[in-house]
Amino acid sequence: MLILALDTATDKGSVALADGDRLLRESSLESQGAYLTRLLPGVEALLQATGRRLEEVQALGVSAGPGNFTGLRIGVATAKALAWALTIPLVPVPTMEVLAAQLPFQPQPLAVLLDAKRGEVFYGLYLCPEERPRVLAGPERLRVEDLPARLPPPPLMLTGPGLDAHRRFLQAALPDLPWAPPEQRHPRAGTVARLARLRLAEGLTVPPGQLVPTYLRPAL
Amino acid sequence: MLILALDTATDKGSVALADGDRLLRESSLESQGAYLTRLLPGVEALLQATGRRLEEVQALGVSAGPGNFTGLRIGVATAKALAWALTIPLVPVPTMEVLAAQLPFQPQPLAVLLDAKRGEVFYGLYLCPEERPRVLAGPERLRVEDLPARLPPPPLMLTGPGLDAHRRFLQAALPDLPWAPPEQRHPRAGTVARLARLRLAEGLTVPPGQLVPTYLRPAL
Repeated sequence: MLILALDTATDKGSVALADGDRLLRESSLESQGAYLTRLLPGVEALLQATGRRLEEVQALGVSAGPGNFTGLRIGVATAKALAWALTIPLVPVPTMEVLAAQLPFQPQPLAVLLDAKRGEVFYGLYLCPEERPRVLAGPERLRVEDLPARLPPPPLMLTGPGLDAHRRFLQAALPDLPWAPPEQRHPRAGTVARLARLRLAEGLTVPPGQLVPTYLRPAL
Repeated sequence: MLILALDTATDKGSVALADGDRLLRESSLESQGAYLTRLLPGVEALLQATGRRLEEVQALGVSAGPGNFTGLRIGVATAKALAWALTIPLVPVPTMEVLAAQLPFQPQPLAVLLDAKRGEVFYGLYLCPEERPRVLAGPERLRVEDLPARLPPPPLMLTGPGLDAHRRFLQAALPDLPWAPPEQRHPRAGTVARLARLRLAEGLTVPPGQLVPTYLRPAL
């Protein structure tokens, strides 16, 4: 089962190709502003490097947000078009779950944070005792000042790109909570591919015409 | 503290730039055969994307093996040359520890496996209860058939690119042990950067002239 996965939810985008539970290759994309011109060439280079053809791809996983507006629109539009053209299943994966799944086999809950701009964050609480995260609370958007009161008591680990965005406040308000390592706080297409495979096995697909990304806030 | 990190130990190479405990960017490199022509342009693109100049880099971390012969030689030679030319500390990071550190905050020990070719694997046992792994046993090179008898009793998780290389044998001989998720079984330059920062704080640097990579087996 060859799965192509796209993640353009943050400024650290990537594409990945997995054959079942084997990651063939994952490639980082150039910065967010360039997704429109870099995403398809990135997919093409990925196929070339792995010696696969686009027609061999059997499912498409996409990081569905919340995330950055422009990146998500390009990623989701590309995923929908490819799935539709190839008539293969389209599997959206919530970006917050991607972030939780990057800290698998954890005994403690994970508070996932994405910056929602204007002093707000997206917050969700997950438990990932094995490969796949379970939602304990959220996700919801709230003011970062209101976050400490919303968190459960420790043990608890913080993760997500929202940590870097609100570093000073979080370190002052929650000095004792451990942070996930920096390289594991950003979503990766390899993890999207893994969760897409697990979701696909449960039939969690969406018709290409119906998929809408989850934005960080309602479009104005 | 700006840290440049290189990982060319396996066929999934990458470069990363970190500012203290913040990962600025991590970029995958093209396939192993092309490291000689892709590594420096990869570093250049990384600096450009992050708006940093080479002269601003304050330390150099490198994945020091064991790993693939050609990749390691190019990665280590490049790291030594850059550290020497910039007169900045060079911090080698054992590749097996990079792999263990990609599963942080784990209550159970991690058996890390790298393919050593000719039916052999490199095996090491680590515990990573927080950010940094502790060596419990090894690393050592042994026949893959001899691995099951060498492992401690569960709980235990398997990780490393050796899993994909010896998939059939391991699944038959050790059917009950959990495997790390596919996208976390390969070394990443972002993790090299993180461990290099921690090692640098303890003075674990090497003079550029003296660093020799750890190969998978003695050179013939």
